[in-house]
Amino acid sequence: MSGFLTLATPAEAKARFARAYTPSPGGTERAPLLEVHGRVLAHDAIAPEDLPEFDRSTVDGYAVRATDVAGASPAAPTVLRLVGEVLMGEAAVVSVDRGTAVRIPTGGMLPAGADAVVMLEDVEIHDPAAIAVARSVRVGDNILRRGEDVRRGEVALHRGTRLRPQDVGLLAAIGAAEVEVYTRPRVAVLATGDEIVPPDRRPGAGQVRDANTFALAALIRQEGGEPRPYGIVEDTYAVLLRTLADARASCDLVLVSGGTSVGEKDAVARAIDELGRPGVIVHGVEIKPGKPTILALVDGIPIVGLPGNPVSAMVIFDVFVRDLLRGLAGWRAPRAFGRVVRARMDRRVPSAGVREDHIRVCLEARDGALWAEPILGKSGIITTMTRADGVVVVPTGQERVEQGAEIEVELFPP
Amino acid sequence: MSGFLTLATPAEAKARFARAYTPSPGGTERAPLLEVHGRVLAHDAIAPEDLPEFDRSTVDGYAVRATDVAGASPAAPTVLRLVGEVLMGEAAVVSVDRGTAVRIPTGGMLPAGADAVVMLEDVEIHDPAAIAVARSVRVGDNILRRGEDVRRGEVALHRGTRLRPQDVGLLAAIGAAEVEVYTRPRVAVLATGDEIVPPDRRPGAGQVRDANTFALAALIRQEGGEPRPYGIVEDTYAVLLRTLADARASCDLVLVSGGTSVGEKDAVARAIDELGRPGVIVHGVEIKPGKPTILALVDGIPIVGLPGNPVSAMVIFDVFVRDLLRGLAGWRAPRAFGRVVRARMDRRVPSAGVREDHIRVCLEARDGALWAEPILGKSGIITTMTRADGVVVVPTGQERVEQGAEIEVELFPP
Repeated sequence: MSGFLTLATPAEAKARFARAYTPSPGGTERAPLLEVHGRVLAHDAIAPEDLPEFDRSTVDGYAVRATDVAGASPAAPTVLRLVGEVLMGEAAVVSVDRGTAVRIPTGGMLPAGADAVVMLEDVEIHDPAAIAVARSVRVGDNILRRGEDVRRGEVALHRGTRLRPQDVGLLAAIGAAEVEVYTRPRVAVLATGDEIVPPDRRPGAGQVRDANTFALAALIRQEGGEPRPYGIVEDTYAVLLRTLADARASCDLVLVSGGTSVGEKDAVARAIDELGRPGVIVHGVEIKPGKPTILALVDGIPIVGLPGNPVSAMVIFDVFVRDLLRGLAGWRAPRAFGRVVRARMDRRVPSAGVREDHIRVCLEARDGALWAEPILGKSGIITTMTRADGVVVVPTGQERVEQGAEIEVELFPP
Repeated sequence: MSGFLTLATPAEAKARFARAYTPSPGGTERAPLLEVHGRVLAHDAIAPEDLPEFDRSTVDGYAVRATDVAGASPAAPTVLRLVGEVLMGEAAVVSVDRGTAVRIPTGGMLPAGADAVVMLEDVEIHDPAAIAVARSVRVGDNILRRGEDVRRGEVALHRGTRLRPQDVGLLAAIGAAEVEVYTRPRVAVLATGDEIVPPDRRPGAGQVRDANTFALAALIRQEGGEPRPYGIVEDTYAVLLRTLADARASCDLVLVSGGTSVGEKDAVARAIDELGRPGVIVHGVEIKPGKPTILALVDGIPIVGLPGNPVSAMVIFDVFVRDLLRGLAGWRAPRAFGRVVRARMDRRVPSAGVREDHIRVCLEARDGALWAEPILGKSGIITTMTRADGVVVVPTGQERVEQGAEIEVELFPP
């Protein structure tokens, strides 16, 4: 292929790749409940019993029959005979008959015969054997009903849920002490380029340190993947081909940064095409930064060629890799709320016009509004990313964003 | 102390506790760059050299002197003599004199004498020794200047930054192959209550499974802490005292859920006061859910008593524990953007009125707006948390939220 003859828009590139490949999780494993936060549930979690399994009091007070205290008020309290007490964690043994009450703690099991609980603060204790209730209650007041949280046989959490702390709590409550989660997708990270050296080496003239391996590994972890860093791969066709073949054989997704520019050294695209079918599907995308992007598929394993420039690599990860990785992780329908905030652009910004432009911005709350300050600077400047809170995507064809214009900012995840 | 005589508002409770205690990180440790995502930087990361250390081309093209191509246009191109090529990762050896050009790849080192780069697409190659430039450039065009990203001696990232993927990339770029990060705060998690059993046990009559240990451990991890689960602690004063003493001696923060209700079993508050000075600082907060909350300090270690009800425990974690934990983790000035979204309440909701009310809501984008659907149900219902995207805080004294009212939703972190 000579040059970017067929530059695709980001949407076209995604659609073309999606026709060839749909990500799905590779396998499942059992994990104990203390380790499942952030993992993706591989089965519907079904409650084996009602939760709770008995009617419970939601307050400290007295279990009663609502009809007994129907007319109770501070002026005319109803006196009930106190016949016993419910102990936490034990079956309620005394039942509530007409005209009687049983003391009950928050969370205690409602005794037979009772249909409501009056709160401690609405009761005056007359003597060890009698209470005066100063407020009426309705049937069901201050009671959590058996199965009101989750019913036996009901799906408490669906397959594909990425587990948050509260989800982990619910799994504990329904007795799922271990759960089946999807295995973390293994993602190979290859860095190519004659100019890059590892972070612990002092770069020589014309050299820079490898930032992509480390930024990409963190991004992969963020989405629940397991990064497999291959380090800096010598930029010769033979070594690249061998390393790609190894990565493709042992991982679920392969990322290669650098070496994707069109030129005499366009070894990555050639190596991918040599490796297997169908090979390169998209080469070159109308996006800024990130034009020299490759989306490829080799015998069922996706290979993404990212630009060598770290900012471009991170933008392309966000646009193309994040969703692939979520698919491989089995995460269904992630909730996007909070990922995007509305703001106003605090100055006029020219845009790339012919390419979809990803402008990094920093947010500031001022005068009761949220303002986005564009972080100007060439895309080779990594601090445009570290100083930013997120990006504004300016569509192809739009030549500027006016000062004060309402925009949407896609926030960087933590 | 008999009963909640001195119920504090959440703000008062926080202020009272803050007068007694300010969290700070316990120590630091060195971590390799592949392991630092999400950790908190314990020192200012200073660039040891300029980044980049040489002027670089940001495009594939030709290094020139801007004055040589001042009048160039497609109609009247300027012909320059091609005198060499810059190779990636190597020092530029050929210099650019008047009337000459040197071929340069993206990221290549700018040769001496050149002050701009013309893009490949604006050049026609006449013969192996000459090019025609069809577009003028200004001094500095298509060049990333030495030190333009970070200057030598400049702070690239500040102490207290919780490291995001792009921050990790920048650390790699400045040669910080290992970094000093704050140690993770150790957080003890004790669950008390005669009614709770571990998740792998079938609850008997009146019993429920322990959800708090697991939900709290996940919340602690979410904020960069290291949970130390003590399991279910027998609800006797002696055992509680001994376990609290052990937890206080070996952790930076102690969380105890359950046993904080006022009643004959108010062992937690008594045990804390027995343990050391100053003991319980706040007992009981005007918040719904979560009234029976304890904020305590024993010989410099904070102890928080959370309600036994899992929903209340999670709300109280959010209101009181999250910030403590961030302070212990050394995280400075977390960016809150995206944590809060504006929405409209989709139905009228009564509120607790006398207490600050934390109403769980589910978000839905509909008719071009974001709507918050309140998840009704008693606070003992865990699925009110798992079905929710976040909470709406209704201040004390406000008795309802009207249908259609504009509200702010605090989103749950993932």
